[in-house]
This record gives sequence, C-alpha cells and structure tokens, in this order.
Amino acid sequence: MYTKLERKKVFRDPLYGYIDVEYKIISDLIDSREVQRLRRIRQLAGVSMVFQTAEHSRFTHSLGAYQMANLVIREVMGMEEVSEYEKLLFLISALLHDVGHGPYSHAFEKVLDCTHEDMTVKIILNKDTDVNKILSKYDNLALDVASVIAHDNKYPLIESLVSSQLDVDRMDYLSRDAYFTGAIYGQIDYHRILRSMKVIDNKVYVKSSGVNAIEAYLMSRYHMYFQVYYHPVARAYESILESIFLRIKDLHQQNVRIDASIQSFLKVMEDSNDIEAYIDLDDSNVNGFIKQLTWSSDEVLNKLATSFEKRHLFNFIELLNEPDEKEINDLKNKYQNMEFGKYYYKEVTVSGVAYMKSKKSDINDIKVLLPNGNIKSLDQYSSIVKALRSSSYKEIGRIFYFED
Amino acid sequence: MYTKLERKKVFRDPLYGYIDVEYKIISDLIDSREVQRLRRIRQLAGVSMVFQTAEHSRFTHSLGAYQMANLVIREVMGMEEVSEYEKLLFLISALLHDVGHGPYSHAFEKVLDCTHEDMTVKIILNKDTDVNKILSKYDNLALDVASVIAHDNKYPLIESLVSSQLDVDRMDYLSRDAYFTGAIYGQIDYHRILRSMKVIDNKVYVKSSGVNAIEAYLMSRYHMYFQVYYHPVARAYESILESIFLRIKDLHQQNVRIDASIQSFLKVMEDSNDIEAYIDLDDSNVNGFIKQLTWSSDEVLNKLATSFEKRHLFNFIELLNEPDEKEINDLKNKYQNMEFGKYYYKEVTVSGVAYMKSKKSDINDIKVLLPNGNIKSLDQYSSIVKALRSSSYKEIGRIFYFED
Amino acid sequence: MYTKLERKKVFRDPLYGYIDVEYKIISDLIDSREVQRLRRIRQLAGVSMVFQTAEHSRFTHSLGAYQMANLVIREVMGMEEVSEYEKLLFLISALLHDVGHGPYSHAFEKVLDCTHEDMTVKIILNKDTDVNKILSKYDNLALDVASVIAHDNKYPLIESLVSSQLDVDRMDYLSRDAYFTGAIYGQIDYHRILRSMKVIDNKVYVKSSGVNAIEAYLMSRYHMYFQVYYHPVARAYESILESIFLRIKDLHQQNVRIDASIQSFLKVMEDSNDIEAYIDLDDSNVNGFIKQLTWSSDEVLNKLATSFEKRHLFNFIELLNEPDEKEINDLKNKYQNMEFGKYYYKEVTVSGVAYMKSKKSDINDIKVLLPNGNIKSLDQYSSIVKALRSSSYKEIGRIFYFED
Amino acid sequence: MYTKLERKKVFRDPLYGYIDVEYKIISDLIDSREVQRLRRIRQLAGVSMVFQTAEHSRFTHSLGAYQMANLVIREVMGMEEVSEYEKLLFLISALLHDVGHGPYSHAFEKVLDCTHEDMTVKIILNKDTDVNKILSKYDNLALDVASVIAHDNKYPLIESLVSSQLDVDRMDYLSRDAYFTGAIYGQIDYHRILRSMKVIDNKVYVKSSGVNAIEAYLMSRYHMYFQVYYHPVARAYESILESIFLRIKDLHQQNVRIDASIQSFLKVMEDSNDIEAYIDLDDSNVNGFIKQLTWSSDEVLNKLATSFEKRHLFNFIELLNEPDEKEINDLKNKYQNMEFGKYYYKEVTVSGVAYMKSKKSDINDIKVLLPNGNIKSLDQYSSIVKALRSSSYKEIGRIFYFED
Repeated sequence: MYTKLERKKVFRDPLYGYIDVEYKIISDLIDSREVQRLRRIRQLAGVSMVFQTAEHSRFTHSLGAYQMANLVIREVMGMEEVSEYEKLLFLISALLHDVGHGPYSHAFEKVLDCTHEDMTVKIILNKDTDVNKILSKYDNLALDVASVIAHDNKYPLIESLVSSQLDVDRMDYLSRDAYFTGAIYGQIDYHRILRSMKVIDNKVYVKSSGVNAIEAYLMSRYHMYFQVYYHPVARAYESILESIFLRIKDLHQQNVRIDASIQSFLKVMEDSNDIEAYIDLDDSNVNGFIKQLTWSSDEVLNKLATSFEKRHLFNFIELLNEPDEKEINDLKNKYQNMEFGKYYYKEVTVSGVAYMKSKKSDINDIKVLLPNGNIKSLDQYSSIVKALRSSSYKEIGRIFYFED
Repeated sequence: MYTKLERKKVFRDPLYGYIDVEYKIISDLIDSREVQRLRRIRQLAGVSMVFQTAEHSRFTHSLGAYQMANLVIREVMGMEEVSEYEKLLFLISALLHDVGHGPYSHAFEKVLDCTHEDMTVKIILNKDTDVNKILSKYDNLALDVASVIAHDNKYPLIESLVSSQLDVDRMDYLSRDAYFTGAIYGQIDYHRILRSMKVIDNKVYVKSSGVNAIEAYLMSRYHMYFQVYYHPVARAYESILESIFLRIKDLHQQNVRIDASIQSFLKVMEDSNDIEAYIDLDDSNVNGFIKQLTWSSDEVLNKLATSFEKRHLFNFIELLNEPDEKEINDLKNKYQNMEFGKYYYKEVTVSGVAYMKSKKSDINDIKVLLPNGNIKSLDQYSSIVKALRSSSYKEIGRIFYFED
Repeated sequence: MYTKLERKKVFRDPLYGYIDVEYKIISDLIDSREVQRLRRIRQLAGVSMVFQTAEHSRFTHSLGAYQMANLVIREVMGMEEVSEYEKLLFLISALLHDVGHGPYSHAFEKVLDCTHEDMTVKIILNKDTDVNKILSKYDNLALDVASVIAHDNKYPLIESLVSSQLDVDRMDYLSRDAYFTGAIYGQIDYHRILRSMKVIDNKVYVKSSGVNAIEAYLMSRYHMYFQVYYHPVARAYESILESIFLRIKDLHQQNVRIDASIQSFLKVMEDSNDIEAYIDLDDSNVNGFIKQLTWSSDEVLNKLATSFEKRHLFNFIELLNEPDEKEINDLKNKYQNMEFGKYYYKEVTVSGVAYMKSKKSDINDIKVLLPNGNIKSLDQYSSIVKALRSSSYKEIGRIFYFED
Repeated sequence: MYTKLERKKVFRDPLYGYIDVEYKIISDLIDSREVQRLRRIRQLAGVSMVFQTAEHSRFTHSLGAYQMANLVIREVMGMEEVSEYEKLLFLISALLHDVGHGPYSHAFEKVLDCTHEDMTVKIILNKDTDVNKILSKYDNLALDVASVIAHDNKYPLIESLVSSQLDVDRMDYLSRDAYFTGAIYGQIDYHRILRSMKVIDNKVYVKSSGVNAIEAYLMSRYHMYFQVYYHPVARAYESILESIFLRIKDLHQQNVRIDASIQSFLKVMEDSNDIEAYIDLDDSNVNGFIKQLTWSSDEVLNKLATSFEKRHLFNFIELLNEPDEKEINDLKNKYQNMEFGKYYYKEVTVSGVAYMKSKKSDINDIKVLLPNGNIKSLDQYSSIVKALRSSSYKEIGRIFYFED
C-alpha cells in the first residue's frame, strides 16, 4: 500500500504548477476507468452556457483536490503527527470524493433516488469497479475510504479535511472555477489559509492571526455562488434539463417507450445500484440522447429537447429586482392552467446563507485558536462572519418559465 | 449588415476580461449551428492526455480570435483608415476561420482529401448552412469571407491579419493554449505587439522599437510547439488515432463492413462536400465509435481501439537523445516484416524551423519600419531571427511504435 | 488647454499594461516639480517594514489614479455625455489628488494643523508652484481643480468620481497596494466595476446586475485595511514616528534647539502655508534627520530615533485576543507614572466599520439602479452590505508601548 | 550555527507567496545594518526613469535570491546529498551576494577602483561590520562565504548555484524585475527549471527533457536585457550620473573643493577599504549631494546636476537604426572640440551576445544530461542556443550626447 513509484509522476496544472504522484496506488486509481470517466463530465455542467470557457472536467478538479491534500500534509502545522495510513487515506479520499458524480448531476439528482455522495460510496464498495479492485488489495482500505466519504465519524480529522466548511474540495474548486471562468473574485489565497490552519488532537483550528484569510475565503465562496454557480442563465439551462429528465421519468413510469438510446439512463433511474450503467453515463451520453429526442413523438420532450439544442432557454425573473406583482400572478396562473405546465414553470429559492452551512456541519465547525490558547467559534470571533449569519439576510427568489 | 445590437453582448473571458459583440450579424453567427458545434471539438485534441487541463474548445478560441480582431481594430495605428466593410469582414473572418475544423483534425486530415481550411470555405459557401444563410443576406459577403480564408489576395490586409506570421489566430491561440495548459512560456505580450504594429497602404509593419516584442512572440511560439503541440505523448495519442482512421479507410475501400455507428465519418471520407455529415462529426461522435470498435471483429481495429480506450499509447524514441542505432534498426525491421506493421510503426519528423514558416507566407513577410522610414525584413534587422533561420538548425526525428 | 501631444506618451504599468497621455497639459503636470516629488514619498510609508516589497511611491499611484480616470471616461456608460472640459478636469484632479501628501503623512498630520487634502489645495493655488503655473494659463482651471479636491459641490459628478465610496483613487490603490505587497485578496475586478457603473444626470449609479462586483470591492477594501494598512507592525512603526514628531513639536514650542537638519520640517510645523518648505520634505529628508537625531542630546529623541533606526519598534497588544486584564492595567499605570510616558504608550482604536464610511460621504452614496428604473440604497438592496453596517460590529482596540 | 528559530519567520512576497526563515543566523543577517542598508538602494537604479514602477530595492532581491536557494535545496534532485554545512553556506551566500552594491553602482564602479563583488567580499571580511560579527562566531564561515562570492573554487557547487549561467541570483532578478516593471516577457518558469536541474558529484546538470525550459530562460534574459536593463533612456540617466561622478573625481584629483556633503563618497573613491564610509552611501545620499550640486560653482557639475534634477537627460542615437553618417561625424567633431566635451559625449557598445557569457564562466558551463547518461554542452544539444552564440550576431552601438 505504501509502495512508491520508481519515478514520481507529474501532472502540469495551471493552479499549482505541478501535481505530484509518489504512491503507486494513487497512480493506479488515477488510471482506473471510474476516475478517467470524470474526464468526460464537466465540472460546471450548464455554467459553460454563460461562462463559455468553463469547460474543465471533474477529472481536473479531482486531481486538484488530491494535490490540495498533498499541500495540507506538507504545510499545515500538526499534520506531521498524523500516521502514514491516515495520510494516504486522506489523499485517496480527496482523489475519489467526486467519483460518483454523474453528468449534469444537479439536475440528475432530482429524478434519481440518491445523491452523488451515495453513488461515490457505491462505486468504492462495488466489487466490479476498478477502484474497488485496487483498494481491496489492502485490508479495510475500501471500507475506510467509503467511511470518510459517508462521514461515519471513524476518521473525524480526515473527514473534516475532505468535506467541511474548510476542506480540500472547496479550496480547489473555488480557485479552479475562478481560473477557468475568469471570475477573479473567486481567487483564494490558499497558501495563507494553509498557514493559518493547525491540527491539534485530530481537530482543525484556525489561528486568530489567520482569521482574515478565512473571512476572505468565505466571501470568495459567497461571490462564486452568486456570480457563477447560481447564475440565472446557467440555472435556466439546468431547469430545461430537469424538465427533460422529469418528463422521461414520468413517461417511463407510465410505461411509455422513449425513442432514443437512453438505456443506461433508464437503468440507473430504476436502480441506482446498477453501477455498470451509471459509469456508462457521461456528458456525451446525455447530450447524445437529447439530440435524438428532438425527433421524439412526445410533444413535451420534443419541445424541450429542441429548445435545449437551440439554447432557447427558460426565461427568468429575479424577485429581488421588484418585478410587477400582477404580472407575476398572471404568469403563475397561466402555467397552472396549462397542460404540462409543470414542465414549463418553476419557482426556485436560492438561499442567501447557504454558503455558510453544509448539510453535515455548521459554520461553528470553524474554531479559532487564540494566542492564549483559548478557543472561540469563528462567528464569535469575527464580527463580519457574525453579521453574515444574521437572520436578517434574505433569500433570493427566482421564477423560471418557458415560452415558445 | 452594419446593424448594431440594441444592447451590446458580452462574454466573460479569462484572457481579455470581456469579449464584446456590437454587430447583430456577429451575434447571429455565434449562435449558428456550425459555430456552436465548435463547443464540442477540443482545441488541442490529444494534448489533454498529457496536459489534462487542456480541455478548452475551438469555440472559445474562435471567440478569442474575434476579440483579438477587435483589439487590432482599436489599437493598431492606421486601422482607423480601413473601411467599415473591411473591418466587419475582418471580424467575421476571424470568428469563422476555424469553423471547418473536424474532431482530432490533425489525424483526420491524413485520411481526408482536404484540409480544414478547405472545409471552412465549403461551410461558408454551402447554401444549407446557418452561416451561409446569415452571410448571404448581404451581397458578396459570403464570397468575400471565403476569399479571405482562401487567401485569394482580394483583401490582402485582412488576409494577413487573419492568417500570416503575425495574425489574430496565432495571437489568441498562443495565449489561450498557454493559459489552459499552464505552460507559462507561451504567454505573449499582445498589448505590446499591437502597439508595435502599424498599417500603411494596406500593409502591416512592425516598428523597429517593437522588434523585441516580435522576437519574444516568435520564441513563445517555438516553445509552445516543442513543449505542447509536438509533445511526444500527445503525438503518440494522435498516432494511434491516425492508425485507426487509416485502417477504417483501408477496410472501407475493400468494402469490409465496419461494425460501429460510423456513417457520418464514412460519408465525409467518401465525399468531403457532404457538409451535413461533416457537421455531425465532433469529439463525442469519434469517441463514441472508437468505444464501439473495442468489440470490432477486425483484429487491427479491435487492438487499436482497445489501446486507445485504455490510453495504452504508442511508444516513442527521440532521435535527438542518441538512442542505440542497432536497436533502432532492429525495431524498424521487426515492424517491416510484421503483418499490419504499417499500422503499428511510424517515423515522424518535426521540423525545427517550421515555426518560422507558414504554408502560404514567409518570415520575410514581417517587415520592420525604421525611424527614418526605411523598411527591412525582420531577419535582416534582428540578428536573433536571422540566427534562428540558419540552415544549421536541425530537424527532430521521432519513431512511434506500438507494443502489446 | 485641449492641445494634444504630437506623439502620445506611454508609461508601462504592471496593472494596466499601459498608461496613456494624450493631452499636453497632463504631460506638463506629470513633469512638474510637485508631481515628481511624489517619486520620493512611499505610498505606504511604514508598511514596508512588514511587507518589504511595498516600496512603491505615491507617484506611481498618482499616474494610476489618472489612468483609472481614463478608463472611467472610456468604459462607464453615460460618460460620453460629459463635456470635454469636465473630462479634462477629472483627469487633472485624479492626477493631482495626492500632490499634497507629505512623507509619512499619517504620522505627520498628527502634529500639523492641516490635512493632506488641504495641502493639495494649497499647492494647486499657490502662485509659486509649477502646478499652479501650468493650470493658471487657463481661466478658472486651478480654482476648479481645487474645488473638486475640496468637495465644494461645484462639479459633483467629478468630485464623486475622484473621492467617494467608489472612486478612481480607491480603485487604483487597492489594486496597486495588493500587487506590490503580494496580498492577493486586495485584487478588485475593476473591469466589472466600471461596466456596472452608469452616469445619469451627473450622478453615478450601480446597476443591480453589478452589485456583486461592488460587494466584492467593499470586502477587498475591508481586507486590505485589516491585513495591510492596519497591520500592527506597520502601525507600531508609525507610532514611533508619531512620538518623534510630537517630541520635536513639544521641544520646539519650548524653544529648545534641535540638533539636526530639520529646518523645513519646523517651518511647515509653524506655518503650513510655507509651500516651499513643504515641497522640500520627502522620505529621505525625514529619514535623514532621524538618523542625525540618534546623536541628539534630548533623551527622548535619542532613544526613539535610535530605536527607529534599529527597527526596535513599539510592542503591541490586540485587545481582540483577550489579553489578561490585570497585565493591561499594570502596563497602563506604569506608563502613566513614567516621565515622558506619553511618548512611550498609546491606546488606539481601529474602527471596524470605518471602511464603510468616509469623512465626507456615506455608504448611502452608492445608489443601485434596478431594471425597472427604481433606485435603492446599496445597503437596502444588498443584505450583505446591510449586515456589514450593523452596529453590532465591534471596534478593534490596540495598545502600543515602548520597552527598552 | 544550525540553531533554528523557535518560530519560523515569514516574509510575504508577491513572487513566491512566502519567504521562510528557519535558521537563527539567517534572521540575524537579515537584521544586520549592511543588509538593511540595501532597503535604501534601488535594484534597478535609473531604470525607474523609464519604467516608473521599478522602485524595488536590492533588499527585496536579496531575500528573493535567498528564497530561490531554499527552493533549489527543496526541489532540485541530488541536493539531498549535500551536507547541512554547504546548504547553509549556500543560503547565506545567496542572501549576501549583493551586499557590496553601492547606489547606482553601474555608474559608480566606473570611478571606483573595484567592483561590487569585491566590496561584498570586503564587507564580509571586515571586522567592524555586523555581518562579519555574526559569521565570525563560527570557525571559517566568513572566509567560506567570501570564498564562494570570490569564486575561489573551494565550493564549486555552491559557487555555481550562486553565480553562473543558471543561478539563484538571475532566477530571482529576472522574475522580480519583470514583475515590478510590468515587462511580462521576463517571466521565467522557475518551477520547471528547478525540476530540470540535477546535481551529480557536485556538478549541476540539466536533463535533456528540460532543455526547452532553459532555452526559454535564456531568451527571457535576452529580452530583459534589451527591453529593460539596456533601455536607452535608463542608460541616458546613468550616463549623466557617470559624467557627474567622473567630474567629481577629476576635480578631487586636482584638489578642487566640492561644495556639497560628499565626504563619504570622496572617502570611498580614495580608499575602497573604507567600509564605514561605503556603508553610509545609499540612494538618498547620492540624490542629496546631486541636489546640492545644482548650486555648484563648477560649470560642469552645475550643468549636469541641474539637468539630472530636471530629468533633462542625454540624447541618444541607435546605430542599428541607420542614422545619417554625416550627422554622426559632425556630432563627434563638435564634442571633440568642445571644452569639457568628454563629459557630454560618449559612445557605448551593448554586446548582443553578452547575455550568453558572464565574466567568470561560459555558456558551455550548462551541461545537458541525456537519458542514456551521456553529457553534452547545451550549445551542442540545442540548435537554438548554438544559433544564438554564432559570431554573426552583431553588437549594438549607441551614442549619448548632451545638449543644453
């Protein structure tokens, strides 16, 4: 398991200069079918409709998260006391944390019965995957990696470094998405962040001298969410995909045959444990069957697929911009009374505080270490973070609707 | 034709900050099926096997070349005297100059009977394309754009700005490919280059005070060629593709049926005027049929497609590194005597001076304007450029060969 | 006044690529003795003690603010309707806005009876300066420039573009100070900010689509303040300077002769209208007399100057980090009872909301323009800005004290 | 000597992010009077007259060269086998290599009887300097550092890493000067260069796979020389300084009293072993006495100093640009027949191949290591380097002359 490559492998990367691979197992995992498949799934799905250079894949992000783990091991104080087993577990978990992503997974998860995190665990544990075969050569390794991804609290330090308010995933994707979209406000100063972190007794702290770096990181995250990830045009693109997927699901449940090469998609929708079918899915697969659906005999699929192809997206209204209330109500009524209206109209809320919370942990997770040894929650220490948490912070509503 | 958009369109771009679209016709062309198809063709094809972040498309480069044309119009002295018609012709030609590229076109052109420049002209002139329909609303516009691409010498200034030793195509792709691969030595100082250029009587000159910027640009180009475009691993990836395409061609000429969804590819190989089929081709199309060929009953296709999928590429030997001559000869003999050896072995020469010459123009094209009004060839003025042209400059040979 | 240079002048700049000078009057002002003097005054004074690369001068910032004004004229919607006179007034005011800065002016202003803004006005209006001679060739130009600097509300648009919550001064210095210190969180996306601004009826608005860019800009400003400008070590350096200046003032008022080449400094302290003496002051002048004061017969000056030279700075305590209260009280008592204690101890409050307010204008100054034409205050529109204004936001206290 | 600091010291740097100091002796040397003096000497002297942001000091470059040595120790293969003593010797030599630089040393060396390298050795060995006191605590350390600087061949590896064709000095200053001037073509890819280097048996080799990085580095160097260091305006500024220094020297030898605070300068000119006087010299000292010389009773000094102050520099003619020969001859004759003509006219040759050679080593120093273990000179291996060395490469002549 700790075998090193005879000659270190090196990947050029615009963010870090180089990504280094020393362990043979890491190199094998990178070459696995499941990790290579991430080359064919774009990191930001529909975002490239509005930021056209956002064409980078989940593969480059996975390598990036792995490299960020390397940097954490090298630069964060206290990491030198972590065992080699946990370090390797960390590197592997970082590399594999997104291996369960499907194409356009934001939209996809809405019709699927499980999340991409669940799929990651399944791929790691399924005996037929390359990834599982490589990990299974060593005792409990596959189980331990799955446990880190599933947040089972067996390796709390590694879990928090892989997925928390301040983790290698976010640190890579904020930098990377900023670089590839050209949205410079997403740049984070990861050197400074790493130097502000300290591991004591299996917990991560931020030194009070580094709190400003963390504040800047949280703001960058906030800006990337509102400027890039939540961009209304990108969301309009995903809305049309959601409606296509939903219509496929509805027809399939009504046993209506769908005239397109959509087998793998249907298999996965029926059974999310069909890993073989899941791995077959990638961006080209989905783009391919949507192209075919432009000839569908189903009116809804035909209309939506044609619009998708021609990039005739859903319109949107930002409620924040004080649109005319009467117009809004008329719109709502129009679609409620329309046949298939549910595929053509949706109300969405983008939560303004979302960036401060994750599903499994709270902003309070970030603990500040004072020079006198005391510990404070970040929002107690930083009045700016406190302000940002305040309930006064409104949510942003949007309406998406489709017009011929 | 000169109609402006009510509201300027803006594309975010990491290289230029913003790409601006003012003319309606430009906006329409960007939305055309043929230009949008470039989103599905990677700019650097197999290079992403070695520089994994090189995932950017020909679409982003086409927008970039268009924006560089915008910058030339704004910043190069003397451009203010060019007519609005020629300026628009320039912008359109820059946007469309690569519209005829196919997937993996380097390898593809080897089995096709025409170049991507020819295909660009065909797409512009073919009555069934969106691009032609948009251009045909205005007199001779389609013909004039085609004439610029074909270097017919009707608009020599625009031709040289679109394609020459110093053009908007190269200025964008060097910067862009450097940015997306992380190869910083490809960065060029285009601000300084634009300020050193001057248009007089329909000809482009470089002011003597700007010669250093041009020297640096030529060196960047040289380095991008050797470090990125000619990288042996990228070339090994394309070598395997070439052999696959060649085998398909050979089988097709022998009327052997190929068991894969390869209709469009075959149609184009039979008739490069089948624009409908050509436009159907993109990276996913080719990747898709190669995946299917891993089950081919033809031994050669089966073996090559399987290797392609698993990224088991051709080996290579750099002759520059003084390999053992006997070994080389044995290798050569082995493949000459092997059945199907021609698909598994190739000798390639990468020309060391290639970067100084283009098919249709010579380095002498770059003319230096001295303060006293005299004009000199760049290689007369710059001893460094003169040195680089010298015949002493060797070619670099490589052998690619395939081993199970 | 509107005479253009025969050949545009160009300054290379790492931030903007190039700074262009087209008007002869701008070129003359740049060459004036008072603007050239800014080459000898560092933009960030004591900050280079902690960020050692912060060695850039107020001259480069003045050119930068001028160039930012150029960019505002070119890129901000609505600026095309401003008269050429006001545009030139804007360019000149931007170039000259800091011409009244003295060496280490933060510390200097504490013993002087006027601010650097006052000094700027005096230099512009004083008949003996180069700047005044150049401006006085044209009617009311000198008076108008002074009026913009003094915020007399004669040219409200130009005033707000030169000095407000969102002005060419801040936009240049945040970018520039970030670049020269290496503090990347100070980077602002000025392209996006300029595109979000709109001038209507002599007022500046921010389009609602650009509010995120403004939020990011305010956060960058906040971070630059806390990370760079308020850095405790930089402040400790200025504290020692303040004590030196204060001691000089006290001795001078007591008619004690000070044994150093300090004539210009004393003249200015006596009469801030002595422009000739003021212009003689620069960093080397102050550094020079402090070096001489290391041999002073006055105990306080001797001790402080020697410490300054050896970079033996004031110690500091951050109250935010919960220091021991008893220790603090003991410290306070010690210095209160010490002879000359007032030169060796000071309590300072760095206001946490300061970044949202300027002396002469309020955050409410930033007005958001909604798509429906309505106007809102930024803090009404942006919940993040609202949160940041909240009174809950604490001030940061520091104690500086000197120990042998 | 190997004592480490309790808490690592960190300097922020825009080029490397951070500069780390672990050894106490390094920290002490940085705090020494002689190293701190470098804060007051600009790295590029007169270059800031043309690139106004080139205001960085030799101090920041010295820290940078030290950090580059850190990077060499960490990243170059084979460095792990070097003894800790030699590593520390390397770090110290890198930090101190420029400690003997005076203000405007290019011009200064012309009237001084020794080079800045000699002065560095003197400062290291002189018993009265802080630097010597710190080094002298350990056996032969001072002598060994001096020996590295003087190229005595006692520590050939360290010597070549500190000063050769490919050393930490050049690698830092090319990057740094490019960053602070904004001349982007000076950027070098030091990560790649370090990875291409290999130390075997106390010698530095470049792996053949890294030759392109070295070619790019040599070209960057060439461009920085011609675009920045040899910029005619910067040289015109230094020409006027040279004439001032020369006139001072001539008057002093004729025992004419010079009416300015110029004691330290004269002391050093008389005896370059007067280290105390030498250390007193810095940019403000020289700028200060030139300001005083504007009132000099000596006609030449008066005229030159006044011109220096007003930035009324020497004119120049580039012979490369084919000036009129008759004009040149007339000019030459005019100054030959003029009283004091020697102070107002000079012919200079900037050698076009200079960038390939250093005083003490040859381009052949760079040795290429082939995969088969063979070694070749860089110019044998790289046809581009061979071309650049060719004797055909012309020299560039310039004439500087002074007109009232």
